[in-house]
Amino acid sequence: MVDFSSDPAKRGFFSPQRYDAEILECEVQGTLPADLVGTFVRLGGEWYYPPSKPDDAMLHTDGYVSTFRFKDGRVSYKGKFVRTPRFQANLKAGRQLFGYYRNRFTDDPSVQGIDGTVSNTTPLVHGGKLFTLKEDSLPQQIDPVTLDTIGAWDFDGKYKSQTFTAHPKIDPFTGEMIAYGYEATGPASRDVFVYAMDKAGRVTRETRFEVPYVSVMHDIALTEKHILFPFGGYVTSMERLREGKVHWGWDRSKDSYIGIMPRDGNGKDIRWFKGPERCMMHTFNAQTIGNKVVLYAPFYDSNFFPFFPNVDGSPWDPTRAKAYVRRLTFDLNSKKDSWEEEILFPLPIGDLGRIDPRYLTQENRYCFTGFTDPTRPFDEARAGNLRGRVTNSYARFDLHTNKVDRYFPGDTHSLQECCFIPRNADAPEGDGYLIGTASNYAEMRSELIIADAQRLEEGEIARVILPFRAGPQVHGIWVRSDELAPFPKAGGIDA
Amino acid sequence: MVDFSSDPAKRGFFSPQRYDAEILECEVQGTLPADLVGTFVRLGGEWYYPPSKPDDAMLHTDGYVSTFRFKDGRVSYKGKFVRTPRFQANLKAGRQLFGYYRNRFTDDPSVQGIDGTVSNTTPLVHGGKLFTLKEDSLPQQIDPVTLDTIGAWDFDGKYKSQTFTAHPKIDPFTGEMIAYGYEATGPASRDVFVYAMDKAGRVTRETRFEVPYVSVMHDIALTEKHILFPFGGYVTSMERLREGKVHWGWDRSKDSYIGIMPRDGNGKDIRWFKGPERCMMHTFNAQTIGNKVVLYAPFYDSNFFPFFPNVDGSPWDPTRAKAYVRRLTFDLNSKKDSWEEEILFPLPIGDLGRIDPRYLTQENRYCFTGFTDPTRPFDEARAGNLRGRVTNSYARFDLHTNKVDRYFPGDTHSLQECCFIPRNADAPEGDGYLIGTASNYAEMRSELIIADAQRLEEGEIARVILPFRAGPQVHGIWVRSDELAPFPKAGGIDA
Repeated sequence: MVDFSSDPAKRGFFSPQRYDAEILECEVQGTLPADLVGTFVRLGGEWYYPPSKPDDAMLHTDGYVSTFRFKDGRVSYKGKFVRTPRFQANLKAGRQLFGYYRNRFTDDPSVQGIDGTVSNTTPLVHGGKLFTLKEDSLPQQIDPVTLDTIGAWDFDGKYKSQTFTAHPKIDPFTGEMIAYGYEATGPASRDVFVYAMDKAGRVTRETRFEVPYVSVMHDIALTEKHILFPFGGYVTSMERLREGKVHWGWDRSKDSYIGIMPRDGNGKDIRWFKGPERCMMHTFNAQTIGNKVVLYAPFYDSNFFPFFPNVDGSPWDPTRAKAYVRRLTFDLNSKKDSWEEEILFPLPIGDLGRIDPRYLTQENRYCFTGFTDPTRPFDEARAGNLRGRVTNSYARFDLHTNKVDRYFPGDTHSLQECCFIPRNADAPEGDGYLIGTASNYAEMRSELIIADAQRLEEGEIARVILPFRAGPQVHGIWVRSDELAPFPKAGGIDA
Repeated sequence: MVDFSSDPAKRGFFSPQRYDAEILECEVQGTLPADLVGTFVRLGGEWYYPPSKPDDAMLHTDGYVSTFRFKDGRVSYKGKFVRTPRFQANLKAGRQLFGYYRNRFTDDPSVQGIDGTVSNTTPLVHGGKLFTLKEDSLPQQIDPVTLDTIGAWDFDGKYKSQTFTAHPKIDPFTGEMIAYGYEATGPASRDVFVYAMDKAGRVTRETRFEVPYVSVMHDIALTEKHILFPFGGYVTSMERLREGKVHWGWDRSKDSYIGIMPRDGNGKDIRWFKGPERCMMHTFNAQTIGNKVVLYAPFYDSNFFPFFPNVDGSPWDPTRAKAYVRRLTFDLNSKKDSWEEEILFPLPIGDLGRIDPRYLTQENRYCFTGFTDPTRPFDEARAGNLRGRVTNSYARFDLHTNKVDRYFPGDTHSLQECCFIPRNADAPEGDGYLIGTASNYAEMRSELIIADAQRLEEGEIARVILPFRAGPQVHGIWVRSDELAPFPKAGGIDA
């Protein structure tokens, strides 16, 4: 039996959205740009069955993939749960069979041997295929038209890690993808396997290394010459898992690390730099400039996730769960194993940041991300279901001028991760659209915001109005029409 | 472009639900009875594209069919818009091409010749097929598993009327269906064609007659020996249609009529009885007892629909749009053309009433319907999006004892039409479940109520929780597992 009524946190706007849905043509307020042609793919998660551990990480929700397809000034919507082996096993049983996030010791005995991934983190299009990713297992391949789940993909048997990152990087100049898996040989293993795939999706190289200690290695950064592997703070071990705990704890005594490996080198060439306590989830971009490597990233000061407890028993400290636009500089000529770090803007931001994807590996001028603008109060009277912090604005950070442009959707809205879409292949950096999903608490619905990325202060160009609350997004990507072939007619709008 | 923002009546809870959706296993509060096995099929409508006439009848919304499938104490949900030719034409154009309800003179010229039905009124299962009905055209056949639209059905060419009622009657003892079409030969025509189909769905008989004047003949009643055809008040004409008006007006000077035809007779045997001003939409049941015919029906005193204007220009009068449980008695031995009418309960009710379907044509003890219990106030503070009257209760009217049992879902809920489900084939009359969809304004979602029909005052047994607002239902039916073959596995729950 499925009953969420005992959990007060899963009510109102936050009650689980447990449906597959399709809208052949969406309602739009404003006018969709005619040159906006392609698909915005979102991935996130919801509890399809209530968690067996009430304090389990929300990172453990069942993956839900959705698409907004744009063409001719019209847009369609489709969303579907990823039919992972876990989802199917729960559905058959009619209840939650899986325990804590990434701790198979806490699962029901009946699902030992069944892949436990929820595949809820990042959509990926590469080599003409659409995937959903979660860093604890292989990609799930998805039919881009029906959103049906085709199954796990191991790159024709060439991908040997048991896990695949949620944040591979695609070189915009070559189409090469750099992917990796950590805990590659099993839970709590120190092994990291790194792969390069050509633009057709074929594995061309593999190399392996071990991390100084097992931690979350959620994202990497890519330059023309180097791959950067950041991690820190989160710890796990087989002992911890056998004790029946959630996979990760936070150890504030642990150094943060960034490994730098030449793209033409291999695992033995990795060089480890060390830094202070940091929670390293996402990166903006990086460049190799002479003998220096520069990384832009919104790392948090400390543990961001309240559901991953501090191992010393101290309470989670929200005042230190803050991220800023940071620049880290690594001197490859120096013998020191430390980096220089600057906070470029004193504004606390969300760490789900984006850049113009054509500038990945290169010097870029603009970073985009959500943040909470304290000068914009939330209308608690009209949007009564608010719970927790509201990301009420998007920002464009200009690294050249230090200027911050802001977009504000209204005082009853909260914003999810933004995504930058270049106006066309030849447009200057930052010329295009900033899009992202907003939760409208007053109307109990979601809206997709489309703003001119160069005119954020003027407000949006259009809003796509959904008649329901869309599930929470973790990450979204923009897919050009030419990236997925075939990506044929889906319902009303064929983008 | 689709934009409903200019219509203040289509906001909040009443904003159009424009999606197809599926939930493989629904959330349930309470416990579903193990003997509740089968499918609740609902039909209603939403505007997929905004109406081209802002004052058009809500009866003109695009048909949306949905199913709740019950088995083993679990339940799944699926809903899909009926892909009528009209729906497809609008989707292709990206806008509303159709004008006023049942007035083809007000349509865009591009859709002349395209069936304009919205097929949004009643689901029907007969002869092993599922249909959606609207009285202005033929049934649309629906795949019971996918809910895909198969297309219009003319009974292998044997059904000659251009229209098919939303309320055919199925004799529970023989499986024979009595169906009819009014305005059978075209808009404003006085022709009524009547058909009998055997339990396999084959046309066995046809007869025809003309009505005294053209009016809404929405429902009929069936006894062992007679068919009753009620109508009255609503008027139309080709002149009216050419003037570009909505199909129906209300003429308070018109008599109401009920035609009684022997089931083994034909059109020339019909006998017309006349009565006072009445708005005759739905019937409960009827019986032939000796030379008398008794009809139970919740007819309204006057025009119920504000969007069908009074032809004398007077404003719509909500105080006269009231229905009661009425008994009408017709003496076939008498030469008089009038009937005797009694109001059996002084409580104003909704006219969407139901009985135990096994008692159709026979004397029945119980009538079920929704009503507004004035002793149960609505919580305007928590359910702030309320607009219009709230049906806040279900009632079981006991025709033997005159007792009224009541079910109340809570002070933030409004109820849609109820449906009675016998506990099993041999259960006594009224032993079973009363189910119906509730709008929960506080949580902005819909809930399916399942109550013990003999214990309404004790509250429901279970609620199926939908994570969204389900579209409004006009009518719903209960389908036993053996009525649709094959009705195979659909997602999680195979009922």
